[in-house]
Amino acid sequence: VRDEETILTRPESTPSRPITPVILCGGAGTRLWPLSRGARPKQFLSLGGLETMLQGTAARVADLALFAPPVLVTNQDQAQAAAEQLAQAGPPAELVIVEPSARNTAPAIALAALAGEPDALLLVLPSDHLIRNIAAFRDAVALAAPLAEQGRLVTFGIRPDRAETGYGYIKRGSALTPGAFEAARFVEKPDAVTAASYVESGDYSWNAGIFLFRADAFLSALQAHAPEVHAAAAAALSEGSARFPDAARFAEAPSISVDHAVMEKAGNVAVVPVDMQWSDVGSWEALYEVSGKDAAGNAVSGETLAIDSRDCLLWSDGPLVTTIGVEGLAVIATEDAILVVPLADSQRVKEAVALLAAAKSKRL
Amino acid sequence: VRDEETILTRPESTPSRPITPVILCGGAGTRLWPLSRGARPKQFLSLGGLETMLQGTAARVADLALFAPPVLVTNQDQAQAAAEQLAQAGPPAELVIVEPSARNTAPAIALAALAGEPDALLLVLPSDHLIRNIAAFRDAVALAAPLAEQGRLVTFGIRPDRAETGYGYIKRGSALTPGAFEAARFVEKPDAVTAASYVESGDYSWNAGIFLFRADAFLSALQAHAPEVHAAAAAALSEGSARFPDAARFAEAPSISVDHAVMEKAGNVAVVPVDMQWSDVGSWEALYEVSGKDAAGNAVSGETLAIDSRDCLLWSDGPLVTTIGVEGLAVIATEDAILVVPLADSQRVKEAVALLAAAKSKRL
Repeated sequence: VRDEETILTRPESTPSRPITPVILCGGAGTRLWPLSRGARPKQFLSLGGLETMLQGTAARVADLALFAPPVLVTNQDQAQAAAEQLAQAGPPAELVIVEPSARNTAPAIALAALAGEPDALLLVLPSDHLIRNIAAFRDAVALAAPLAEQGRLVTFGIRPDRAETGYGYIKRGSALTPGAFEAARFVEKPDAVTAASYVESGDYSWNAGIFLFRADAFLSALQAHAPEVHAAAAAALSEGSARFPDAARFAEAPSISVDHAVMEKAGNVAVVPVDMQWSDVGSWEALYEVSGKDAAGNAVSGETLAIDSRDCLLWSDGPLVTTIGVEGLAVIATEDAILVVPLADSQRVKEAVALLAAAKSKRL
Repeated sequence: VRDEETILTRPESTPSRPITPVILCGGAGTRLWPLSRGARPKQFLSLGGLETMLQGTAARVADLALFAPPVLVTNQDQAQAAAEQLAQAGPPAELVIVEPSARNTAPAIALAALAGEPDALLLVLPSDHLIRNIAAFRDAVALAAPLAEQGRLVTFGIRPDRAETGYGYIKRGSALTPGAFEAARFVEKPDAVTAASYVESGDYSWNAGIFLFRADAFLSALQAHAPEVHAAAAAALSEGSARFPDAARFAEAPSISVDHAVMEKAGNVAVVPVDMQWSDVGSWEALYEVSGKDAAGNAVSGETLAIDSRDCLLWSDGPLVTTIGVEGLAVIATEDAILVVPLADSQRVKEAVALLAAAKSKRL
């Protein structure tokens, strides 16, 4: 009876062996300043509930029927907190790889691919994205697994709902299986007109930076298209350990994203478009978009009091935030810094960050 | 030589004997919430510089050539802090009268008038007003002193620069001396149309709540127009002490302003109009108006960063306040509460205060 139930509740395409999540936790963004800080990057923030972005990421891959315990790729500063948060949300990491320096995603993923079994199925996950529809995420992973088993490098594509110029776009080619396509083309951060034409065409997905592949398939593409990354990562592991790769050898790797190093160049890339209510929460406006709103269109978190205020994001991690008679504003309050900016201008937070950095402010 | 110099540097109308300042320090306003609080009313805030409003008030009457040490009328909660601040800004109080309960200004002033010499010249001063032009203030007091000596109840009138509906207005009658007039009429808080006609006419001044009179002249008017106030104050002093008037007897006084109890009714009231850059700082907009602005029209205090922001009031007593791309906003930040409101709507802070009071919030 139990076997039957198990069979009935699993989708047909459930992979035959567990997938190893590779969680990348090393970013240090300031686009959500003043909430995100040098010492508290976005993945350690709670933006969609009580759990942090990192915990949410781990929780999405905690089901041992589908996933093996994760591999965490992080840095010295974040390693302890990241490993603890991971273990609170799912199985403890099978391996924690401490990057000796920040070299972007290609070298980080290379370490994870080289450190495990060659035929391991790796699901690469940024630790600072929100995904609201977990079922859609799981279904897409399950759908992609057979393609990855066959040696495809699978990327998951997000249907664009606006002409965003801050993301990469993937053009769909011919269908491989129902729901999966050849990746015909990668375009990094197009201009607004081009982005609008992509959205209009319906042929493009956003590149969310989530990938599924066999370790050996990835490494062979890396060897072909970015051999210096492969060599540096391999040397760092052989002269150091899986947990502590050698710093000098790792530093020989160029700082390059996996998109540039591999995905845009490899011929065996597939894209699985998925509607999973994804957001990288790359701005206060993006957080507003994915947040629940009250009847006046306000999204609030923490102690807030919105009087005659509409379409605002009020976010506090301590002080009471009160607004009266305002519209379309982001008001973000921490213990020591407050930001007030129209939601539509919220990407301009980088101007504040630049000025504070120049002033060597402690508020960064 | 010294006598000659003294004579030369004093205005002709310098009074022949020192004037006793009576500083009223018992208010508990919340119009400047979140900066003003139950435990930190406006008179204890620094709004025009480093000194508090109370210290500024005391400093304006610290010159012993013109003024005797002040009498402070305060309450149990504020007495210690008020007396200390007074002594930091000028001579220590000659007498501190601790009101057993809050009964508005008429009973408070009655205590001060009854506690001293009958022929003392009393200058009644709210402790939470800003006056930028001290010389004009002193000149007006000196000009008013002979009238007060003659038994007039002198009020100082502020030239209205807008049709404010929150103040009382005084209509000028016939001239008594150069710069001093009979007070023809008191009007409490007119409607906007009426206020505009008053401003237009040029015959009206705002009633700033600053008065100069002989104690006996005031008491005789009080006896005539509000005998129950006189009786309660006299009984409170005789059954208690000057410092601690009897609570039960004082409580018998109606809670009534000196305007309603005496000034609007007495026949011997004079008004001395004075342009002294006065403000009662009754709203964030009022504070903005009297504050210095930068080239973008922003008035700032504390750690602030205004990017592409115009005509804003940014006020912090701790956290960094950053604004980007906003206009005409007040952003007020304290350690535990933040207010964002268009300056033009800043009187609506009372809506927030009412809601917080109903919720028994600790942020009040």
